[in-house]
Amino acid sequence: MKNKKGILIVSGGMDSITLLHDLVKSLGKENVLAVSFQYGSKHSRKEIACAIENCKKLGVEHMIVNAKNVFKNFESALLDKKGSEAIPEGHYEQENMKKTIVPFRNGILLSIAAGLAESRGAGTIYYGAHSGDHFIYEDCRKEFVDAMSQAIKLGTMNKIEIKAPYWNLNKISILKKGLKLEVDYKKTWTCYSPKGQKSCGKCGSCQERLEAFRKNKIDDPLDYVTRNEISKISSR
Amino acid sequence: MKNKKGILIVSGGMDSITLLHDLVKSLGKENVLAVSFQYGSKHSRKEIACAIENCKKLGVEHMIVNAKNVFKNFESALLDKKGSEAIPEGHYEQENMKKTIVPFRNGILLSIAAGLAESRGAGTIYYGAHSGDHFIYEDCRKEFVDAMSQAIKLGTMNKIEIKAPYWNLNKISILKKGLKLEVDYKKTWTCYSPKGQKSCGKCGSCQERLEAFRKNKIDDPLDYVTRNEISKISSR
Repeated sequence: MKNKKGILIVSGGMDSITLLHDLVKSLGKENVLAVSFQYGSKHSRKEIACAIENCKKLGVEHMIVNAKNVFKNFESALLDKKGSEAIPEGHYEQENMKKTIVPFRNGILLSIAAGLAESRGAGTIYYGAHSGDHFIYEDCRKEFVDAMSQAIKLGTMNKIEIKAPYWNLNKISILKKGLKLEVDYKKTWTCYSPKGQKSCGKCGSCQERLEAFRKNKIDDPLDYVTRNEISKISSR
Repeated sequence: MKNKKGILIVSGGMDSITLLHDLVKSLGKENVLAVSFQYGSKHSRKEIACAIENCKKLGVEHMIVNAKNVFKNFESALLDKKGSEAIPEGHYEQENMKKTIVPFRNGILLSIAAGLAESRGAGTIYYGAHSGDHFIYEDCRKEFVDAMSQAIKLGTMNKIEIKAPYWNLNKISILKKGLKLEVDYKKTWTCYSPKGQKSCGKCGSCQERLEAFRKNKIDDPLDYVTRNEISKISSR
């Protein structure tokens, strides 16, 4: 039987914070180890602060891995480095949103989580990938998660596997689930392009979050520069 | 058609340095990008110095990724940290050699290489895994490499795959190949447990290297504390 203990990759966004609450409820906080990665994204400080706050509130052990050096030579608009492009505005379906891809990021984070899981005796890596991510982010798709899980099984003597319980949900249903779990979404961060304490409201990430709140008929507790809906124009 | 450019993970050991020479000959040095990882092993300084020297000699671009922070909380006798166990003496077949496993290390290094390959437009990740590694290191086996390659293909829109050209060779035949390619094995490092400028001669890594030279009927140009053969006692 697999070890009950699980390691959860917690970015500090809505999906991983919802999953954190979900797992604490189903497994017990003593069986959840949270791990957050500093990989040099423009929004990482805000995200990780949310991860820290939620883990503290729930009494979950939280590891923060500084992986900035690893991503130093990667090309992506998401990364905070000299000469990197601005975060594009609009929806995830649009071609320009591909600039926010960090090459093989989730494969790297899942691999590191596998090593930590083996070091700490956890049998499962939990991962908050969901269906809204699938269009442009190859490393959020079910096929990828399955292949990565298979590689991790083979590379750890069958001790560790990946579970992505939200892979067939979208952000709207994840929020619905989280509201039932009494997640405080004021303590989650989503925006790729923070403007001081406010979310920009224009990046794909903000647009998707705002839509999820609209569809659930409640107000997003975060502050935004703008909450206007950007019309969806598919450039594909 | 896949991009001809390849990224090679170069530790500085015999296998990866032989493969480096092999690839420079077959692809041309302009199509080879070498990457070495500092992951905090006890022998990393010596290994990476060899990687640097060989890349310089061959005129190959060489990236060095500092991944020490990533492995900081990993458990392994191979890692240079307070309280880590001593490197065991003997052969790889023995049970105690498992202490040198760094959990999912090669999965992590291959994942980072995938991200770098995508950032730099390389279509193949070359990897010097060989059959001598297979018994205790799960992440050197063919099944693992195939699964990892599949995950990387799916996570990079089919742009990148792994090739492990030496997977069915052992160290004896890799050395034979390298001697034909005129590799200078004085500029490779193998020992897990260096004693000053000398190799210990007692760790599994040294024993395997010394055997390869013996079977090829030539002297290993490195200095050793001892070159005695340790008898193989299988504890499995």
